[in-house]
Amino acid sequence: MDRELLLKGSRRLGWAEAHMSVLREIGERLEKNESLRGVKVGMALHVEAKTGMLAVTLAKAGAKVRLASCNPLSTDDSVSLALKEERGIEVYARRGESNTEYYENLNSVLDMRPDFVIDDGADLITMLHTVRREQLEEIKGGNEETTTGVIRLKAMARDGKLKFPVMAVNDARMKYLFDNRYGTGQSTFDGFMNATNLLIAGKELVVAGYGWCGRGVAMRAKGLGANVIVTEVDPIRAIEAKLDGFQVLPMMQAVRQADIIITVTGCKDVVRKEHLSVIKDGCVLGNSGHFDNEISKKALEEVAAPPVRVREQVERYDLTNGRKVYLISEGRLMNLASGQGHPVEIMDMSFSIQALSLEHLVRNHASMAPNVHSVPPEMDELVARIKLKTMGLSIDELTPTQKKYLDDWQEGT
Amino acid sequence: MDRELLLKGSRRLGWAEAHMSVLREIGERLEKNESLRGVKVGMALHVEAKTGMLAVTLAKAGAKVRLASCNPLSTDDSVSLALKEERGIEVYARRGESNTEYYENLNSVLDMRPDFVIDDGADLITMLHTVRREQLEEIKGGNEETTTGVIRLKAMARDGKLKFPVMAVNDARMKYLFDNRYGTGQSTFDGFMNATNLLIAGKELVVAGYGWCGRGVAMRAKGLGANVIVTEVDPIRAIEAKLDGFQVLPMMQAVRQADIIITVTGCKDVVRKEHLSVIKDGCVLGNSGHFDNEISKKALEEVAAPPVRVREQVERYDLTNGRKVYLISEGRLMNLASGQGHPVEIMDMSFSIQALSLEHLVRNHASMAPNVHSVPPEMDELVARIKLKTMGLSIDELTPTQKKYLDDWQEGT
Amino acid sequence: MDRELLLKGSRRLGWAEAHMSVLREIGERLEKNESLRGVKVGMALHVEAKTGMLAVTLAKAGAKVRLASCNPLSTDDSVSLALKEERGIEVYARRGESNTEYYENLNSVLDMRPDFVIDDGADLITMLHTVRREQLEEIKGGNEETTTGVIRLKAMARDGKLKFPVMAVNDARMKYLFDNRYGTGQSTFDGFMNATNLLIAGKELVVAGYGWCGRGVAMRAKGLGANVIVTEVDPIRAIEAKLDGFQVLPMMQAVRQADIIITVTGCKDVVRKEHLSVIKDGCVLGNSGHFDNEISKKALEEVAAPPVRVREQVERYDLTNGRKVYLISEGRLMNLASGQGHPVEIMDMSFSIQALSLEHLVRNHASMAPNVHSVPPEMDELVARIKLKTMGLSIDELTPTQKKYLDDWQEGT
Amino acid sequence: MDRELLLKGSRRLGWAEAHMSVLREIGERLEKNESLRGVKVGMALHVEAKTGMLAVTLAKAGAKVRLASCNPLSTDDSVSLALKEERGIEVYARRGESNTEYYENLNSVLDMRPDFVIDDGADLITMLHTVRREQLEEIKGGNEETTTGVIRLKAMARDGKLKFPVMAVNDARMKYLFDNRYGTGQSTFDGFMNATNLLIAGKELVVAGYGWCGRGVAMRAKGLGANVIVTEVDPIRAIEAKLDGFQVLPMMQAVRQADIIITVTGCKDVVRKEHLSVIKDGCVLGNSGHFDNEISKKALEEVAAPPVRVREQVERYDLTNGRKVYLISEGRLMNLASGQGHPVEIMDMSFSIQALSLEHLVRNHASMAPNVHSVPPEMDELVARIKLKTMGLSIDELTPTQKKYLDDWQEGT
Repeated sequence: MDRELLLKGSRRLGWAEAHMSVLREIGERLEKNESLRGVKVGMALHVEAKTGMLAVTLAKAGAKVRLASCNPLSTDDSVSLALKEERGIEVYARRGESNTEYYENLNSVLDMRPDFVIDDGADLITMLHTVRREQLEEIKGGNEETTTGVIRLKAMARDGKLKFPVMAVNDARMKYLFDNRYGTGQSTFDGFMNATNLLIAGKELVVAGYGWCGRGVAMRAKGLGANVIVTEVDPIRAIEAKLDGFQVLPMMQAVRQADIIITVTGCKDVVRKEHLSVIKDGCVLGNSGHFDNEISKKALEEVAAPPVRVREQVERYDLTNGRKVYLISEGRLMNLASGQGHPVEIMDMSFSIQALSLEHLVRNHASMAPNVHSVPPEMDELVARIKLKTMGLSIDELTPTQKKYLDDWQEGT
Repeated sequence: MDRELLLKGSRRLGWAEAHMSVLREIGERLEKNESLRGVKVGMALHVEAKTGMLAVTLAKAGAKVRLASCNPLSTDDSVSLALKEERGIEVYARRGESNTEYYENLNSVLDMRPDFVIDDGADLITMLHTVRREQLEEIKGGNEETTTGVIRLKAMARDGKLKFPVMAVNDARMKYLFDNRYGTGQSTFDGFMNATNLLIAGKELVVAGYGWCGRGVAMRAKGLGANVIVTEVDPIRAIEAKLDGFQVLPMMQAVRQADIIITVTGCKDVVRKEHLSVIKDGCVLGNSGHFDNEISKKALEEVAAPPVRVREQVERYDLTNGRKVYLISEGRLMNLASGQGHPVEIMDMSFSIQALSLEHLVRNHASMAPNVHSVPPEMDELVARIKLKTMGLSIDELTPTQKKYLDDWQEGT
Repeated sequence: MDRELLLKGSRRLGWAEAHMSVLREIGERLEKNESLRGVKVGMALHVEAKTGMLAVTLAKAGAKVRLASCNPLSTDDSVSLALKEERGIEVYARRGESNTEYYENLNSVLDMRPDFVIDDGADLITMLHTVRREQLEEIKGGNEETTTGVIRLKAMARDGKLKFPVMAVNDARMKYLFDNRYGTGQSTFDGFMNATNLLIAGKELVVAGYGWCGRGVAMRAKGLGANVIVTEVDPIRAIEAKLDGFQVLPMMQAVRQADIIITVTGCKDVVRKEHLSVIKDGCVLGNSGHFDNEISKKALEEVAAPPVRVREQVERYDLTNGRKVYLISEGRLMNLASGQGHPVEIMDMSFSIQALSLEHLVRNHASMAPNVHSVPPEMDELVARIKLKTMGLSIDELTPTQKKYLDDWQEGT
Repeated sequence: MDRELLLKGSRRLGWAEAHMSVLREIGERLEKNESLRGVKVGMALHVEAKTGMLAVTLAKAGAKVRLASCNPLSTDDSVSLALKEERGIEVYARRGESNTEYYENLNSVLDMRPDFVIDDGADLITMLHTVRREQLEEIKGGNEETTTGVIRLKAMARDGKLKFPVMAVNDARMKYLFDNRYGTGQSTFDGFMNATNLLIAGKELVVAGYGWCGRGVAMRAKGLGANVIVTEVDPIRAIEAKLDGFQVLPMMQAVRQADIIITVTGCKDVVRKEHLSVIKDGCVLGNSGHFDNEISKKALEEVAAPPVRVREQVERYDLTNGRKVYLISEGRLMNLASGQGHPVEIMDMSFSIQALSLEHLVRNHASMAPNVHSVPPEMDELVARIKLKTMGLSIDELTPTQKKYLDDWQEGT
């Protein structure tokens, strides 16, 4: 065993633990109410320190957990080791695992015959509905962490294929308002700076997609001095982006002037062959969306020589038209593959919602339809109140007079 | 008649007309489809150039309109005159009208026995449900422009009191995302600068409320160099404000350090007696919320000598504790009372939604329940598409492959 | 006499007085030390409330002052009236005065046979060196307020023509760092909003010149949501602008996409015939530089029909190529001609430097060469310390150990 | 030899090479003019990829170079290895070297008997003036990279101790305007995110010092969502910070509410014992100034138990008062010790000035006094013009009419 690696992972877990105060309080509540006692939970998440603390918290509250990665390039091996050695968590994940290994690891999680699953991108849940259908009856419910996963699961439900209730953790206000926006915003540039050491100020930086993630990335890019261009397919969001001070262009125009392109759409082929034919020489391509298909690697392979690695996390593609582009972390989510993922305090909120959603499923799954369910607003409120407390903030409360006023329609000019 | 005033109003109307391209296109559509032909519309809105153009547009499409002000201090007398003299619109409004006149004017509008009403703050609709109930049966529907009005009308509907269908124009994405945020954001500081000529940079500026209006004001205050403090009652919004880089404090603390306080809550008594007892000497108080009860004038009167006017739009209150505060435009919405209201292009979008909502009511009122109704998403989309065109912007479209991908749940890692 | 106008001016003066605490303290110092007793001061400044308070302060300290406007469109007639009626100041200025009147007024100021002059743009001083050379011997010194004026006076000194010492008030840190940047930044948009009621967010806004004024305008344009394009002739400033997140383009390209152009260069013909031939239809042109030659009106007249006034402060030029542009306030500094000029607190600092510079001239003129002189750093420091106090701020002081460390070169790694 | 380390270093050098276009052009000029042929240059800089490329460029132009680190924690061992193995540069540096090794390495550089020295922080030059005075006569000149070093050297010159001419590279506009501001701004947060994975948005972040580095850090902190508090000793800078929208506090107050403190003052003991007694529990301390004495480690040792390493680059100090603080990279410049240093394109500009300053010294040293010399403005201009070209930007040029106007003082209103 690699002592130094273990030490590193151990410290990273401890550091996360020290800075996840909301999850700690939720964890204590779960321990006390014993709702998770003996429950088997299969998890597929990015295996790094914050996720590790979610697993540890659930385990401490009495659940039996098993953890695989939801992405081949996002595992922090030091944390994985420390989880196994020091925290007694069963982990199946390795940074740089092949696609085969990736699915083997998901299978290992399902081999524990979980009662509940916690998923990130819906690969695990899809697996249950395709190659491991025999387990479907045993599964009582699941949580889904991402926009991408929720879109997939809603499509599944629309097709009448979804067989157990799933909590749309992503759609909780205390999740998407913070994790998708401030989380992705910061961690994308953590990844970018690590991967490239390039200047952001003064760059023409294209953000593809102006959803919650996209506006987080655009906001931070501007905050770091870039001149931001947004591409969108939704006209209302496009106008918002424009009025937020960004340029708005179709991708075919944007690529011509882009120094950097970051995709965060949840859709595939956002940068594709037609764009590569006119892309600016030297453009750096990176993705912070869930899957590595936003920048089409197939297209890159078609119009370029095999890539040359030019930095630990950057490959250069020499295009047949004489230009070159750089791809960060093989098009996988750069905030985790080149960086350390979302900031600790952000995941503290997201994973508190995860833990509460699991408790909710455990308590209520019997009466819940096999559909995608919203997180109850009172959970958002609970997490928000604890978070405020841990930040040392107090806020106003409506007076009885004000409450009455807001319920009343008769008082006017 | 004041020739100079008329000329000024005439120009202001013409200027608005030249810059409201979306409304022009919607207007042409209404003219062509003749849906408004002969319809009687009673309107209570801020009587200034953009509102004027809404009235003109509806009239041009065949409606019979009558217009009163929805606020005693927001009328632009030059526009009012030009509407009457040059555009043939019946207007009942005067800047600085008394409360009695205010209600007389609303009554004049109702005297036309309208089929539909367009309201801003719900005073007109409330009137119909209280002192003019005899007309209730004639009214086929209404539009409501503001957050405040929608809250009132939902309370009314909850009580089972609302007697005709009302379109929640405010809640359309093409309205609140832009009007409430960028509109209130800019026009508040137009009003502030006009009223005070004071520096914004470096000031401790308190924004009460972090709804759509509040975040617009906070965003612009920051953009003008203020150090912004947000007060809120909603814990989730409070955390958002904090993570947007603002300070978050309860009002009792905020007032102690505030150089400027701007209320945009839709609630009353946001600055009240307890706050005035500890407020910073010299603090400037202004309101951009709909009603003039957000800063309690009753409280001011109780703890101060009668106000002294110290600038055209500012009064000084000398508090009994020896400090002084300044109040802008008597606590009425400063963006209209001290400024020129929302920018033209913003109202172009809002009033396009107004016109389309009216058409929707005309066509569908018979089948609509006496409740508060959402604006159909296709109207948002339509207005957005026209707006994009007038801005000269084009955006991406999903390819068939992408559409299929987004509907599909099987493609994963 | 117009009672209402007087009342307005009286209030505006009183408001400025109440918010110029630094100048008040400097004024008390001058009264006490009697340095200005009996000194005759001829002033040419923008005649509005803050300038008025400078005149009042000098007069109160014993000087005999006479004041004309330094620009035909920047006078606030209400303040002019109140200065004469209530404060006993001799004022020669009227908003909208002709060029002839303008020079008559400057002459009236010089007719008092001043010992010292306070100038803004150097028209008064130039007059003394051309048509009123007979007075040159009597003049003991002058102050100059603007970048433009200082450039002119340095050219004059380079040619050996300057005949008395002039304090470059503009170049004092407590002046240009604040007045040129935060002052011009805010007041330009006060003027713009007043003149147009147009939306700034989402607009392509060109700022010509990235000096202190230009970066103030660019910063605020960005803060109000514009997409800012900078034009420059200095390569270093151009790179700064780019790295500050702005687009940088030559004017010939910038005009093609500009919704709004604001000139702040101190140079002439910044927007000229060649640009007008390709300018975007509907572009709004405004100037915040000292003279009205930055946007070439001669060029406009050559390529367009006579202008049509379309709003109180906006004229439309219909170009022969079928496009139209709008010009704010006839190309005169829009922050004063359409707005109320720099915020009070900014002028409080600038005019404190003015008053101290005058005192400096009075005390030292005999030993000062006929050249452009820097404001001594201790005046900056004095004004800064008083300003900090009035803002209620305290800051750190170097400890003796730290002072020693900064003077020492031996302590290293 | 560690093949993997070499590969990493080789790639990092190649990546820097590919993105330093200005230096490449300057290098070609030096090769062609042969000014550096045979010149011996001793260098003490942060040994990482960009510095490596400066050494490579000088060597390629014919100089004989030897390189040591100017800081014990800033060496990138991979680059050091690649410089030696693949680029033939003599390097004396190791990450984590002891103070003894540090000085041994500086000595090794001086052992080559250089003609010129390139220094960063002035340790090398100080050594020459103290323990290696025997070489003083041989040294023809030096360059100094930092604010800190220039301050030391000016103190030395003031004392009459400096024995050869030194170019104040730091004070060139193309250096400090970019390197100190955008460079330190970005790289500080590269280091911070790497070291901590903590959220920046919503944090109370104290920036000590509002010089060029400090305003870079403050600007980026704001851009990343922090609520920024500035501490200063200069009243004018303090007011600037305030008007830039930051809070300004004395350190004794700032520490009470600080979540993060970043020192960039160039002074020592900025966070000291008195501050630690009231510092907020959990505060993260980091330094981006040149020396590791800005946060007093002596004070930390006095009031806390020996530090515990809690993350790769973070130690926790448990204070005797029960609170804890975290220190990043032992108080050494976090942007290099925890991050990868300034972005490549920034150092491209700084090192172009370095190379030109060296050429200037080589050509002119004989006639230069033993003093601190400014970089001639034409070098700034040259670097700026090349930089503009490499960015693909073109800018305006003054017309002959404009040039004449700017030289003329007679044209006025």
